[in-house]
Amino acid sequence: MAQQYPKPLARLISELARLPGIGNKTAQRLAFHILSLPDAEAESLSVSIREAKKTMRYCSVCGNLTDQDPCRICSDKSRRDDILCVVESPQDVMAMERIREYNGRYHVLNGVISPMEGIGPGDINLKQLILRLQQHEEVKEVILATNPNIEGEATAMYIARLLKPSGIRVTRIAHGLPVGGDLEYADEVTLLKAIEGRTDL
Amino acid sequence: MAQQYPKPLARLISELARLPGIGNKTAQRLAFHILSLPDAEAESLSVSIREAKKTMRYCSVCGNLTDQDPCRICSDKSRRDDILCVVESPQDVMAMERIREYNGRYHVLNGVISPMEGIGPGDINLKQLILRLQQHEEVKEVILATNPNIEGEATAMYIARLLKPSGIRVTRIAHGLPVGGDLEYADEVTLLKAIEGRTDL
Repeated sequence: MAQQYPKPLARLISELARLPGIGNKTAQRLAFHILSLPDAEAESLSVSIREAKKTMRYCSVCGNLTDQDPCRICSDKSRRDDILCVVESPQDVMAMERIREYNGRYHVLNGVISPMEGIGPGDINLKQLILRLQQHEEVKEVILATNPNIEGEATAMYIARLLKPSGIRVTRIAHGLPVGGDLEYADEVTLLKAIEGRTDL
Repeated sequence: MAQQYPKPLARLISELARLPGIGNKTAQRLAFHILSLPDAEAESLSVSIREAKKTMRYCSVCGNLTDQDPCRICSDKSRRDDILCVVESPQDVMAMERIREYNGRYHVLNGVISPMEGIGPGDINLKQLILRLQQHEEVKEVILATNPNIEGEATAMYIARLLKPSGIRVTRIAHGLPVGGDLEYADEVTLLKAIEGRTDL
């Protein structure tokens, strides 16, 4: 007897609730907000989803998300060809770009080796990395910038071992205390890594 | 030099970031999630926004959001015609429906009188309420269920005064401690209302 939401509204709510971090309450709030928008704005949101999904693809060279192939970074002639930074995701490329310091190329794995989740070396963009390094002998250093967690470390170790025979220099980003961090609140592993990685002043 | 997000992705992020409670970081996370979805699922999200926006409208009788006019509640012959509950928004109708106790009709104001925000009686769905009451003399009671805050109280007072001459019984939902609440943490006004509204046992 109690009324349910009309179907189109119920569908919108359930679609929104499938997004990560969006619970049912938030989805309802968002849905009512969308219904209160001017037609053009709601349409613009709808179109932006379709357009982004339609035009964004993975770069055939580096695996980054892009609307042109090869992506802007791969086709940028001003960047150094002798250094390659391996990251897990397109978001990580953006994080690296924000420091405005790194001027080499990237390789995006679009995943990470995780035996627990059944993701092996063949399931991430790794074959293409080996191929790139074979074709481009100018690469002198590969920086492994996967996340500093179990899967990221394991993936870095795996790639390092894989590249060993090639003689290319393979480096790993430093572990330590984040700037602005607090010794008191640092976990033991981080603190240990910070001590191990200490540098001369 | 640092790379920006490609345009379709940047647009999707900015569209998502305009939703209430969605900051830029969350919008990025959602955008990357949407791009990682199978085509059909992303399309379904896009379509659900367009469809909901296209098919949902305000009921010409009660002002509730609906995909058919008059809405399901207004056209439900099993509901009582002699009692009318006035609420601020379609969400409030759903809240009332969830208690599965109220079996009368609704009137949705789609707003609340708020001089601070320049919203007067003419800006909410009030004229239609008066019209309804004049046309349907079977209404014996109007329950004012606007929110228990300043604007909601003012709106309730305004409507009560407006309906006075008609002789229809006008009631206001009770103020008091929420069930499961705690006297110790109740604010003074709520506690005062709870005492004032005490009932015999």
